[in-house]
Amino acid sequence: MRDAYHEELDSLTARLVEMTRLVRSALSRATTALLDADLHLAESVISRDEEIDAIHAEVETRIFELMATQQPVAVDLRTVISALRMATDLERMGDLAEHVAKVARMRHPDTAVPVELRDAIVEMDQVAERLVTKAGTCIATRDVELAKELETDDDAMDRLHRRLFRVLLSQDWAHGMEAAIDLTLIGRYYERYADHAVRVAREVVYLVTGSRTPANVSG
Amino acid sequence: MRDAYHEELDSLTARLVEMTRLVRSALSRATTALLDADLHLAESVISRDEEIDAIHAEVETRIFELMATQQPVAVDLRTVISALRMATDLERMGDLAEHVAKVARMRHPDTAVPVELRDAIVEMDQVAERLVTKAGTCIATRDVELAKELETDDDAMDRLHRRLFRVLLSQDWAHGMEAAIDLTLIGRYYERYADHAVRVAREVVYLVTGSRTPANVSG
Repeated sequence: MRDAYHEELDSLTARLVEMTRLVRSALSRATTALLDADLHLAESVISRDEEIDAIHAEVETRIFELMATQQPVAVDLRTVISALRMATDLERMGDLAEHVAKVARMRHPDTAVPVELRDAIVEMDQVAERLVTKAGTCIATRDVELAKELETDDDAMDRLHRRLFRVLLSQDWAHGMEAAIDLTLIGRYYERYADHAVRVAREVVYLVTGSRTPANVSG
Repeated sequence: MRDAYHEELDSLTARLVEMTRLVRSALSRATTALLDADLHLAESVISRDEEIDAIHAEVETRIFELMATQQPVAVDLRTVISALRMATDLERMGDLAEHVAKVARMRHPDTAVPVELRDAIVEMDQVAERLVTKAGTCIATRDVELAKELETDDDAMDRLHRRLFRVLLSQDWAHGMEAAIDLTLIGRYYERYADHAVRVAREVVYLVTGSRTPANVSG
């Protein structure tokens, strides 16, 4: 039988996995809201970000209590420190999904995404969802090899990001400056979302191995 | 006489204050590099970001050692948790200054900033530097009232950001799409830099009062 301390750690891990599901759903719905100019859906992403913030606050409070009462050392200390960081990254991913939803809301009843960029946005969403799904699995299973995969998966996002810029900079761009600014920022939100998913996976590597990857220099 | 534990905490606080100076200098130099198309200066900001990353890693390691060996509780636990978060925000500010420098490098020997936006960029830099300077003072003095000032100081950045978009969207914009994309991203980097400075100040409020401000929902 496990002790109360490790039961609490398991319960915190489950909350983090739940956060990955919520921020995945938030980005997926924000993307649909953006592409379909769905105001109702955009509003729901924006209002439900509070739920993610609340879980973040709850996880933080519980970790502080755990630290204060159990005073973990070695691998247990790494585990709670990592959990704290992962919660911060996941909360930020929720914010970025909310930013996408806010662009959808701002441009409604128009859509911010012209037809020739719909595919790129759909793919950015798919890459981001794949990353956050894997990050969730990494948290649950502590699978270091899977965690390392995210570093290369993220390259797909960089390629999509470059494709987005090529379209914006082409002679054929006929949607004006406002749409270009929107898409520059939208591209940045998906890219940052993916970066945070990669950071979550790095935390899993850290908590299992105790060492930070060299790639930790940026974020 | 202070004990070794509190001496180490003081030393960590000094390192955080030093990080505020380094990221302030990084943004200031990046801004000059951007406005003057100074490749050498841009390169120096980019290469010296490693120094900030190294201090970040050092601060983290020392905090983990402190937690493992001293097992702080209550206000001491809050202090080290806050220090950990502040170090993360400051490291990220270094990255954002580096991003600005990279735009300068990419556009060299041209400047990415047309003449009608030079003032706005200069002012964004000034607001950002004011925020990070105050954040450094807050860390050193634990002055909660000063820390709260940063929330309103940050409004100036939002106003400048809106001004930037107005210029990009005006009929008179004659610098094409590439410059507009650059400036959209540059604006975002300054804005995020300022946000992180505000987060540092919020950590000071938290470590002194033990409560998070309601404004903690975003970041």
